[in-house]
Amino acid sequence: MPTIKFYLREGLLPAGELSSPNQAHYGERHVRRLNLIRALTDVGGLPLASVSKVVEAVEDLDRPVHKLLGSAARTVDPAPAPEPGRESGDRARALVGELIARRGWQVPGDHAAAVSLATALAALLEVGHGDYLDFLDEFASASEQIAEADLAFVARRQSPEEMVERVVIGTVLGDAMLACLRRLAQSDASARRYPRPDGPEAGRTASR
Amino acid sequence: MPTIKFYLREGLLPAGELSSPNQAHYGERHVRRLNLIRALTDVGGLPLASVSKVVEAVEDLDRPVHKLLGSAARTVDPAPAPEPGRESGDRARALVGELIARRGWQVPGDHAAAVSLATALAALLEVGHGDYLDFLDEFASASEQIAEADLAFVARRQSPEEMVERVVIGTVLGDAMLACLRRLAQSDASARRYPRPDGPEAGRTASR
Repeated sequence: MPTIKFYLREGLLPAGELSSPNQAHYGERHVRRLNLIRALTDVGGLPLASVSKVVEAVEDLDRPVHKLLGSAARTVDPAPAPEPGRESGDRARALVGELIARRGWQVPGDHAAAVSLATALAALLEVGHGDYLDFLDEFASASEQIAEADLAFVARRQSPEEMVERVVIGTVLGDAMLACLRRLAQSDASARRYPRPDGPEAGRTASR
Repeated sequence: MPTIKFYLREGLLPAGELSSPNQAHYGERHVRRLNLIRALTDVGGLPLASVSKVVEAVEDLDRPVHKLLGSAARTVDPAPAPEPGRESGDRARALVGELIARRGWQVPGDHAAAVSLATALAALLEVGHGDYLDFLDEFASASEQIAEADLAFVARRQSPEEMVERVVIGTVLGDAMLACLRRLAQSDASARRYPRPDGPEAGRTASR
């Protein structure tokens, strides 16, 4: 783990107050900043160059909160979906535009996540399972529910450092939680939909 | 892209019917199997050893559907969450057990996703943001909604090959879709919660 001296040298941590020629005092503000840096590197897995940008955003007191949260969110963009073919790209982009309009989402059309979403939709169309998109609004409405929780979690804090820390941690660990919960819920839904009639042997082939 | 001959040699594709000494006929069954193999490798990114196991599961006609879907799901386990510290592990495992009981989910306690979920929760506790778990049931209920859609998508098919193909494609591309939709919905929720009063300059610092 890099030392405090290293973060000071890189300009990520503000200098402490000199209490004697050889001693500096570090206060609440330093602790908050250290927590932020560790959340970004340890949980978010961000390189130091990105951490610098986030720290810069946190220190720009003129930046409105929504913009600050946007900068933080951009550091943890979703991994790009598999490369799609060409034909389906236009159709996928149109579907994303229609979805955003239908949900009334206040987001720029060139939002990185809108671009990545179009890539995922194009991949679905390419492999011949485009009817998964019949359920796109179920996915969108579930995402709205999660986003409300995410924002409520972030809004429990006031300082820019802590809010940004929560955006990054919530997004990264939230994605992991969500992937796990989805698989558990799938397993439950599958057990209900395809029950074993009355024991491990009875009717083993019945549902086929 | 590996050739059909390669898949035949690896035992992933059944031999065609010889129509002449030098020609084999490949039918509907081969097309379905090829689609499955390509979905697993191209979309799921699975190594051939895992593809073999899935093909084996598909060919085991005695396996009940729920078990078959379970085998397919296990090939695309969620990426493990960051390594947690030790103290919080027990607490996290207890929280997962309580959640599963509270939701009434019919899943084994040692389900791989339950283990990964505990790892993610432990990481949240370790970094001092355990109150994110106040929203765990919101995440669980959103996941149930998505899992219902996932199962409905899978159940539109009857053949084991196509069902397994849909489990893998739906899970992998669905995770990607969900991550993107969550970020778009967050951006919308943030714009609503922290609006810019009436222009790019007016009230820039007001919400801070």
